[in-house]
Amino acid sequence: MTTTAELRAVAETYWSAADARDWDAFAATLADEVLYELPQARERIRGKDRYLRFNREHPGARRVRVERVVADGEGRQAAVRTRFTVGAEELHAIHFFVFDAAGRISGITDFWPEPYEPPAGRDHLVERY
Amino acid sequence: MTTTAELRAVAETYWSAADARDWDAFAATLADEVLYELPQARERIRGKDRYLRFNREHPGARRVRVERVVADGEGRQAAVRTRFTVGAEELHAIHFFVFDAAGRISGITDFWPEPYEPPAGRDHLVERY
Repeated sequence: MTTTAELRAVAETYWSAADARDWDAFAATLADEVLYELPQARERIRGKDRYLRFNREHPGARRVRVERVVADGEGRQAAVRTRFTVGAEELHAIHFFVFDAAGRISGITDFWPEPYEPPAGRDHLVERY
Repeated sequence: MTTTAELRAVAETYWSAADARDWDAFAATLADEVLYELPQARERIRGKDRYLRFNREHPGARRVRVERVVADGEGRQAAVRTRFTVGAEELHAIHFFVFDAAGRISGITDFWPEPYEPPAGRDHLVERY
């Protein structure tokens, strides 16, 4: 069963477990053959064991909270916006998940968009916040 | 009515119209009070008229194709991954949509993640592509 509500719950467990560094709960959300991709760096990690090591070994303390979950039961996929706190820095992150028939995460694609200064010439339409 | 299939269709029309610079078809997907946000630049545009001008006035030729649509009928929201071609450059973009009760887009949040070199120390887990 993979209803929209179930996919949402799995995505939320993934992030609460990551934030708590509860790697057993984190691992329970993952399919054995999970494929992780980071298109900005063109990096890929194959399989749950390696992906768990990647997370455990990640240097530095960081906290994460979920801002939005878009869960698509029909498409068996989800997209999540998070905010990471790393020291004094706040980062945006975006994550696309694909789920297997058992509702485990079989594909993860992460994006890390960075702040930038807006181009000139659109002040008449745009406000800053 | 705003089923998952309907939200998906609106998101796809938004992008096919943007790619074709068909601003009438594009406008038809938008709520009058649409709010556009670009968190990386902390920019915000309020209302359909301004948002249409922002798109019409955007300098330079660009093409866009949809890579993935995550549509959430229950949450009345969607997330879309696209690839933009601007001259010789290929860019990733990610878009979060919120819909009103009529199925028109009332909120858009865009992200433009840029390529970067991976940090050292994880070659034992990661492959490049």
